[in-house]
Amino acid sequence: MRLSQSFIPTMRQDPAEAEVISHRLMLRAGMIRKVAAGIYSYLPLGLRVIRKIEAIVREEMNRAGAQELLLPILSPAELWEETGRWDFYGKELVRLQDRHERAFCLGPTHEEVVTDLFRREVRSYRQLPLTLYQIQTKFRDEIRPRFGLMRGREFIMKDAYSFDQDEAGAQHNYQQMYDAYCRIFSRTGLQFRPVEADTGLIGGISSHEFMVLANTGEELIVFDPDSPYAANVERAEVVPPPLGIPEDLKALEKVSTPQAKSVEDVSALLKVPPSHVVKTLLYQTGEKEITAVLIRGDHQANEIKIQRHLGLHDLTLASPELVANVTAAPVGFVGPVGLSGIRILADHAVGALSNFIVGANEQDAHLINVNSTRDFAIDALGDFRQAQAGDPSPQSGSPLQTARGIEVGHVFMLGTKYSEKMGATFLDAEGLSHPAVMGCYGIGIGRTAAAAIEQNHDEKGICWPMPIAPFQAQILPVTSSEAVRQASEQLYNELNQQNVEVLLDDRNERGGVKFNDADMIGTPYHIIVGDKGLANNTIEIKDRKTGEKVHLPPSQVTDWIKEAIARQLKG
Amino acid sequence: MRLSQSFIPTMRQDPAEAEVISHRLMLRAGMIRKVAAGIYSYLPLGLRVIRKIEAIVREEMNRAGAQELLLPILSPAELWEETGRWDFYGKELVRLQDRHERAFCLGPTHEEVVTDLFRREVRSYRQLPLTLYQIQTKFRDEIRPRFGLMRGREFIMKDAYSFDQDEAGAQHNYQQMYDAYCRIFSRTGLQFRPVEADTGLIGGISSHEFMVLANTGEELIVFDPDSPYAANVERAEVVPPPLGIPEDLKALEKVSTPQAKSVEDVSALLKVPPSHVVKTLLYQTGEKEITAVLIRGDHQANEIKIQRHLGLHDLTLASPELVANVTAAPVGFVGPVGLSGIRILADHAVGALSNFIVGANEQDAHLINVNSTRDFAIDALGDFRQAQAGDPSPQSGSPLQTARGIEVGHVFMLGTKYSEKMGATFLDAEGLSHPAVMGCYGIGIGRTAAAAIEQNHDEKGICWPMPIAPFQAQILPVTSSEAVRQASEQLYNELNQQNVEVLLDDRNERGGVKFNDADMIGTPYHIIVGDKGLANNTIEIKDRKTGEKVHLPPSQVTDWIKEAIARQLKG
Repeated sequence: MRLSQSFIPTMRQDPAEAEVISHRLMLRAGMIRKVAAGIYSYLPLGLRVIRKIEAIVREEMNRAGAQELLLPILSPAELWEETGRWDFYGKELVRLQDRHERAFCLGPTHEEVVTDLFRREVRSYRQLPLTLYQIQTKFRDEIRPRFGLMRGREFIMKDAYSFDQDEAGAQHNYQQMYDAYCRIFSRTGLQFRPVEADTGLIGGISSHEFMVLANTGEELIVFDPDSPYAANVERAEVVPPPLGIPEDLKALEKVSTPQAKSVEDVSALLKVPPSHVVKTLLYQTGEKEITAVLIRGDHQANEIKIQRHLGLHDLTLASPELVANVTAAPVGFVGPVGLSGIRILADHAVGALSNFIVGANEQDAHLINVNSTRDFAIDALGDFRQAQAGDPSPQSGSPLQTARGIEVGHVFMLGTKYSEKMGATFLDAEGLSHPAVMGCYGIGIGRTAAAAIEQNHDEKGICWPMPIAPFQAQILPVTSSEAVRQASEQLYNELNQQNVEVLLDDRNERGGVKFNDADMIGTPYHIIVGDKGLANNTIEIKDRKTGEKVHLPPSQVTDWIKEAIARQLKG
Repeated sequence: MRLSQSFIPTMRQDPAEAEVISHRLMLRAGMIRKVAAGIYSYLPLGLRVIRKIEAIVREEMNRAGAQELLLPILSPAELWEETGRWDFYGKELVRLQDRHERAFCLGPTHEEVVTDLFRREVRSYRQLPLTLYQIQTKFRDEIRPRFGLMRGREFIMKDAYSFDQDEAGAQHNYQQMYDAYCRIFSRTGLQFRPVEADTGLIGGISSHEFMVLANTGEELIVFDPDSPYAANVERAEVVPPPLGIPEDLKALEKVSTPQAKSVEDVSALLKVPPSHVVKTLLYQTGEKEITAVLIRGDHQANEIKIQRHLGLHDLTLASPELVANVTAAPVGFVGPVGLSGIRILADHAVGALSNFIVGANEQDAHLINVNSTRDFAIDALGDFRQAQAGDPSPQSGSPLQTARGIEVGHVFMLGTKYSEKMGATFLDAEGLSHPAVMGCYGIGIGRTAAAAIEQNHDEKGICWPMPIAPFQAQILPVTSSEAVRQASEQLYNELNQQNVEVLLDDRNERGGVKFNDADMIGTPYHIIVGDKGLANNTIEIKDRKTGEKVHLPPSQVTDWIKEAIARQLKG
């Protein structure tokens, strides 16, 4: 492509609307433009990246035996009512009525539609396993869309659905998709990690998220440097600590702690490490019911784990009014000793403590040398905290490390949740009917593009990995002489003939403008054609990411570029 | 692909829901399934056809210098209000509100969104010409969706928009798109014809429709066998007849014509050809205003032409009540003689008549030997009728022929209609601001697939043209012997290695079932592997469309198929 004839409206200034790097760089590089909150046009440069990611996804889905179809965007309400999600989905579901007042939504996901297709078309176990996928625009009416393609209201996803005869088949299919996802993200050239994920409210059996690693990621993960173990912190299992030799129990004592409301305050005042202070968190678990959860001062509560233990769908801290009704303790001075009529849960790490410190249930006072059993009863011990760096890996025992990531893919064992509700059954060899065992598998295509930028950029712009770069090489004629023009045109023709995706900056602009735009756009190789170089029979090639430069005679440039690209697409 | 592992649910019976051939065959061949009225899932086989058409469209758009982008489906109401189309579009526009009660529609077309993009990003004449296109799902809430993909509510279209400095540039761009469309439809392997079209309410300057010819088509076109001239009958210009030598005017006479209300009745009763009878059509052209239009008995009125002459947006026949108020004439006996206070338009052909027959404005009576000027005054002569077979071509004078077609593409000169309303301007070399001159260009992707079937089928199923066939060859092992299985597998591997898109019917089914499904699906070449043939060292290849068969040694099949495909893709 010639840049003079390309619609790539780069911006010199940072746009005010962009909060994160990928959003800012996508706007500045002329990849996307906002039409409404969370709704974007993909301009030619942005669409090229999307299409490259789609092509990789498609190839690997097909290789894994999945078959591509295209389900409609308009999804009839009746199907969603069968699974109960018409009500459950709330305001995130974009709803509308047609001219005959029939209700539809714009599909945010397609379990209902694909399960309906299955039940109408599949009869026999001989038709299984079956995995169907699509790459389709999805809709979710986020209350606060932001971060560009990272959290949009209209976005492109690949979603796949598998149907199997039994759990074993479904597990096999799940593993095939997991492997395909590993190949997909490897092929995009991104650093990523599959992590164990919480199955959350979708209620599946097992689940992995695929995280593109980036310091700016919203998700925190823990990983084991010595084994493949990695997990979302929301999900990561914490191994209970060894019990060790109990300390001698000291005498319970009340101490004055004026205004020491936080673990840090108490720890500083009493000169003990935070690991010796225990937080008492009060959650509302019924209309007038409170549950106390004890967590060590240096740990974070994991509400998803607590929720799961309690069998609840959500969890909120008790309001000050409710706390005042149930206990006499002022906020910041709550403790388990003497709390009556309240269920007490304690994290394993608290169970292993002796002589610790808790709030005294009165203003400006804490208890020291507290010991469970002697001083209060724990109703249940469990894993109620967030994993953190240094915790032992459940696999190797090595200290876990943490990293930030962006969720770009999710594989999910659904079991028979949808097939049972919608009657998606098949007949086995004996003629008996069973619900199909399902899995679902998503990849955010636009979000992968955004994550690639979060992981691959510098202060000058984007540094695309070769496999998803919108162009592979960019020719920059930096002076306006005829010799430079001719050499540039010749290279442009040669590279095009060799099927290199090349952008020629043939605009009538100064070298500085061309360098800036090339760095912003992030084409992996810049081919710099200038009079000085030509006088010495050389052309400079710059690697956008490393900044490394090579100088070659014009006749060798095309071959060098072609080989460099091939190398990077392979590995 | 192996058919045993493919989701291609063919149907043995005709589905009740299908009214037209393409809809029926797409359902029976397992290409699409209905999700709601006018809303379909594209199953793998159908999607392959869609993708092939898209690929051809994309290549030719790129070759014509158009740049691909992707505009959002959700389109904010404010943009549509700027052009007045938010109100104008009526119930066909699918509307919705987001959670913050902001109004959106689901884009049925994207003039507003792309013009908004233009005005925000383009400043200078140096950025022109600019042609942008997308392949995107569109929505139109048809009051009566039907005919499968032919008239859906959710459908895939390619839409392109061009921006130029002036009319000349716009005309050049229009011609480029016209040429690209000719290449596109040639490459799909379809018989088609570009025809002059009415610009209708979109209010453009010039316009062509691309018609796939099929007897089942909804549109009637006229074409000149001796020149490239072709036009939609709604649009086709009728050359005024030569005046010739006027007949002697005979004396006006009233004759009794009991119950002869139609041209046919009068013609039979009075023993004159219908071309000698003149119909008087009364249209309501104001609250209490009627306009009479005189059309020769063997001609059809063209209401679009009449409308355009009158400068009206629509046209309805006057109600019997209004007719009774304004004239004394009973229905079927209206005529121009003695009609007072009514404007009278006459088609050129009526202007050339002498001594003709009209209604007498009284029950059961007609006037014969009527002559305009002498007996009544014509307010305006014009081209008010439909062209028909035998009319002289405006280009060569040869008699026009008629054909039926399906509109699959439309190119449209828009002028500055949208750019003026939305302030989409650019600065010329002198720094003066001008609105961009626009064109828009659509292709119905799904409708092209449906039209291909309407044009290419027989009683057994679809006969795909090679360039858009979902598979190019299909191997049918018709017996279950090991020799047949092995020969089939070997061919399957060979063809795959040669990148032939081949479907292997490895199902455990009788030969008859396999033949029927292969005919239904319409793969261009069937490779029939049976024990008898193998005993003679031959395999049969059947051409689906012509039924022609060749018998070849197994070792020659792959080369033969490859060459046959290459031949058909070229020309």
